[in-house]
Amino acid sequence: MKLLRYGPAGQEKPGLLDTQGQVRDLSGVVSDIAGAALSSESLTKLTALDPNSLPVVAGKPQEDLRLGACVGQVGKFICIGLNYADHAAEAGMDVPPEPVIFNKWTSAIVGPDDNVQIPRGSTKTDWEVELGVVIGTGGSYIDEADALSHVAGFCVVNDVSEREFQLERAGTWDKGKGCDTFGPTGPWLVTQDEVDDFDNLAMWLDVDGTRFQDGSTATMVYKVPHLVAYCSQFMSLQPGDIISTGTPPGVGMAQSPQVYLKGGEVMSLGIEGLGTQTQRVRAFS
Amino acid sequence: MKLLRYGPAGQEKPGLLDTQGQVRDLSGVVSDIAGAALSSESLTKLTALDPNSLPVVAGKPQEDLRLGACVGQVGKFICIGLNYADHAAEAGMDVPPEPVIFNKWTSAIVGPDDNVQIPRGSTKTDWEVELGVVIGTGGSYIDEADALSHVAGFCVVNDVSEREFQLERAGTWDKGKGCDTFGPTGPWLVTQDEVDDFDNLAMWLDVDGTRFQDGSTATMVYKVPHLVAYCSQFMSLQPGDIISTGTPPGVGMAQSPQVYLKGGEVMSLGIEGLGTQTQRVRAFS
Repeated sequence: MKLLRYGPAGQEKPGLLDTQGQVRDLSGVVSDIAGAALSSESLTKLTALDPNSLPVVAGKPQEDLRLGACVGQVGKFICIGLNYADHAAEAGMDVPPEPVIFNKWTSAIVGPDDNVQIPRGSTKTDWEVELGVVIGTGGSYIDEADALSHVAGFCVVNDVSEREFQLERAGTWDKGKGCDTFGPTGPWLVTQDEVDDFDNLAMWLDVDGTRFQDGSTATMVYKVPHLVAYCSQFMSLQPGDIISTGTPPGVGMAQSPQVYLKGGEVMSLGIEGLGTQTQRVRAFS
Repeated sequence: MKLLRYGPAGQEKPGLLDTQGQVRDLSGVVSDIAGAALSSESLTKLTALDPNSLPVVAGKPQEDLRLGACVGQVGKFICIGLNYADHAAEAGMDVPPEPVIFNKWTSAIVGPDDNVQIPRGSTKTDWEVELGVVIGTGGSYIDEADALSHVAGFCVVNDVSEREFQLERAGTWDKGKGCDTFGPTGPWLVTQDEVDDFDNLAMWLDVDGTRFQDGSTATMVYKVPHLVAYCSQFMSLQPGDIISTGTPPGVGMAQSPQVYLKGGEVMSLGIEGLGTQTQRVRAFS
């Protein structure tokens, strides 16, 4: 099942994508793709629905029908750093002895095809295609063997990053990871039953048609069940929390010479089976 | 005006503290002390109310009436590190050339007198009394001269911190700052009109009656208006966001030998004019 949120920013309604590629309205069934609607009980109910019984929403998603982030009311946007050995190498850093956790401010979350805004004073805005894990059932001290039962599904995240703000401006990475529009999320939340092998999904990112990232979740160092269990040692997880699991090689910072985003450029990215995103970059004005 | 949230955890109602120290119910006026209720328009309306016209809530606050965090639905819990020159010195770190921003996961937020839970495996759970700034009106790229117009008021925060998780476990500080119960907030949000000089407030923290922190906001390096303006360069601020502005000297990590919290101990802390907090520490079991 592919769950999504459609409509104008701030007024998104819940929907699902049917097998014909049409959006079906779920607002008579759940109030949002968020919180309790992500529990396994709720997902079981939604899966049992006949999509043909749900109203068709006019418009083609990602063309003339805007999608919002595929999860609403996200409480925590947890990110994992340096989780691909080849990306750690290109960043000039070691693979960490245990997962690196950092934060993306939730106000950074936007729809999969919304504009990405270069912040004032930025010269180093960069991209990172990532596999997002959406928590369906909360918990603390989750066992790794039980971790997947806490996962509602998966989605594409672009972990947009300002490298000077992240690395050269004193302190943690938080200045460069959570600027507004730095968290395109979606197009849809693909429930776990539809993702055959989350450990072996192709992923890519192009800027203006040039492929910069061309990887696979197969090279992730710390795998999804470990990450869910690990994060839950340091905080409780709640339904709708997102764990973004790190990026493969090919970020702009690692090019020689370095390449950063400029106004007017277009990022296109995707993960096998999870859909694609397209963002136009806006210069600060 | 002292705004607060009272009642069982997760079911808090909005209230205010009257001049007799009684809680008055605001649930007929606002749905929560959160979001739009924190705008200057809303605060002006609340200030104009005659507290005697509001229902008295039974019980004495912080005795037989539990208080929740004084702000609900916090979207971002933004913290400033090393913002007191004397604390930076005791931590063996330099005063940073610009403010250090870090994150406290919002799931860490609890009431001012709730128990603080030592996490599993922790040996270095520590304390930090801090001045919290509550955003009332959101914005990006806020001018420092205009910053106070975005502030609803102030509160006490205990920035509870696990030092091993924060400093010795790879990556950013996020593993050691946002464990559940690590963010006691309150007892009340004191609106700005009642805080004569937020730059000169005594602040203290005791553990089992021994005073460890005895400072003043007067020794803050980066002041409140600068911090609001600064943070807004890296993210938009929304009503109900909290900026916790750093701690004065006297944390456990800086004692010789170091002192960390143990189950059964009691922290008492406060800031002049903003009230006090009392937390019992619970060992992990």
